[in-house]
Amino acid sequence: MKIERTLIVGGTHGNELTGVYLVKKFKREPQLIQRESFETCTLLANKKAYEIGKRYVDTDLNRCFQSSCLDNLKLSSYEAQRAKVINQTFGTGGNRQADLVVDLHSTTSNMGLTIILASKKLFNLKLAAYLCDVNPNVKVLYSAPTTQNNPYLGSICEFGCTIEVGAVAQGILDANLFQQTEKLVHTILDYVQAYNQGVPPQVRDKLVVYESIGTIDYPRNEAGEIQAMIHPQLQFQDYQALNSGEPMFLTFDGEEIVYESNSVVYPVFINESAYYEKGVAMVITRPEDFSTTRQLT
Amino acid sequence: MKIERTLIVGGTHGNELTGVYLVKKFKREPQLIQRESFETCTLLANKKAYEIGKRYVDTDLNRCFQSSCLDNLKLSSYEAQRAKVINQTFGTGGNRQADLVVDLHSTTSNMGLTIILASKKLFNLKLAAYLCDVNPNVKVLYSAPTTQNNPYLGSICEFGCTIEVGAVAQGILDANLFQQTEKLVHTILDYVQAYNQGVPPQVRDKLVVYESIGTIDYPRNEAGEIQAMIHPQLQFQDYQALNSGEPMFLTFDGEEIVYESNSVVYPVFINESAYYEKGVAMVITRPEDFSTTRQLT
Repeated sequence: MKIERTLIVGGTHGNELTGVYLVKKFKREPQLIQRESFETCTLLANKKAYEIGKRYVDTDLNRCFQSSCLDNLKLSSYEAQRAKVINQTFGTGGNRQADLVVDLHSTTSNMGLTIILASKKLFNLKLAAYLCDVNPNVKVLYSAPTTQNNPYLGSICEFGCTIEVGAVAQGILDANLFQQTEKLVHTILDYVQAYNQGVPPQVRDKLVVYESIGTIDYPRNEAGEIQAMIHPQLQFQDYQALNSGEPMFLTFDGEEIVYESNSVVYPVFINESAYYEKGVAMVITRPEDFSTTRQLT
Repeated sequence: MKIERTLIVGGTHGNELTGVYLVKKFKREPQLIQRESFETCTLLANKKAYEIGKRYVDTDLNRCFQSSCLDNLKLSSYEAQRAKVINQTFGTGGNRQADLVVDLHSTTSNMGLTIILASKKLFNLKLAAYLCDVNPNVKVLYSAPTTQNNPYLGSICEFGCTIEVGAVAQGILDANLFQQTEKLVHTILDYVQAYNQGVPPQVRDKLVVYESIGTIDYPRNEAGEIQAMIHPQLQFQDYQALNSGEPMFLTFDGEEIVYESNSVVYPVFINESAYYEKGVAMVITRPEDFSTTRQLT
């Protein structure tokens, strides 16, 4: 199938400015993101949250795209309504249906340049493999939805991915990460152009995908208050092996809490600011090899 | 004069968690901050802002302590009311008047361990000199109030300082910075104890104080939107010399904007998240030598 329309989204979280300002730039200079064989649209997804400098107004927009939410007419939060409009416009069957969505995010975790796959469809895997070939620093992450359907914005189209860059505080722009994110967007568009022309670039046979296998919360007391911080030895060590017996948390009194398990894990989203309220100190993953040599359908 | 009561404040900005969690710790374990010769109180200054994960509810609490605000009965914002209560309790003449206030902050700028003097009274200078003697990484900053009176919380007592640590994103705890901030608090309390006992530690004769001489805003368009980011060569370079001709900003199209002036400056608060709305991309300073050998009165 040909990609007829690509959607680039910024500001799904209003305080992640990299995506917001990239989308603003692309709106000012649309020629930068046009390619011959398909249309590219842009969307500032949660403008109201951006205006108040927060991740969201009522609820996390990037958890509003499962069909149980999209089909529920009773949900009145700003983000639930916004999700419906976005899906009805750009989602599969929408009046400006996009075939590929690229959602631009940032994180306070040291995740460098991460591609989060919306699904493990071969197109997504090949695209991610190409991004890794062009820039060997790119990491690929997949997090199977825990709800019955996929709640992420990246799921509204046939193909999609999230670009997650960090570490960067919310509410600021980091020029290096801004430019690196923009380069990834251009590389994606170039890939789609070649794919549409029937000459997609050769990519590596095996792609390493970090698969989310769970989350670990901060130690908390009965009132839900956290009792420890990410250990300095783990801070900013996203994608590095965490072995049993290695320090994970440090209590406010300076006591170490170690990771205990039979298996090595690779934490990501370590100390992500927005996840304190979600009960997530880190997401733990395992790297898996995926083949990209199947026929692309 | 003897210090009868010291006040340690956290959460003046609700999303600066280092101070919030230090104050929570000191409330749980008050013996940690008690010294023989004086009383130590703690205050979570803007609990409501902390609960909603924001810097403030209505307005910046740390700009509400000038007398024109404290005396104005018409101001109805949450923070204006909070400032009055805090001042009436712990301020000079208050029912639990403190002689020294230590206000705990954090910043997205790379300011390491910074002591911001509430005033250049000799006690404050000697205290700062002692902190520099104990930890040579400590930097001392002074920013003369631009309004007629001092709007900062640190100004409500005879003596005071702000501890400003970074770089750390809002809404997260960095264990290293938490522990270093706690150490500074203990060093301050030990200094006060020795001072009260008439045997204050000898300190260096000359103290370098970075004096704020102004601010530089981001380039903006007529609508007020920023047109450039902090240049990668300047990002995280707080307290380093910025010479004429050196890059300061980078536009979204990759064009460099250089600093042009006859004089070298030393920027701080570079890319502080909370200052985008205040029209401040950085605060520029000059280091000045201060003598600490005058008689302490």
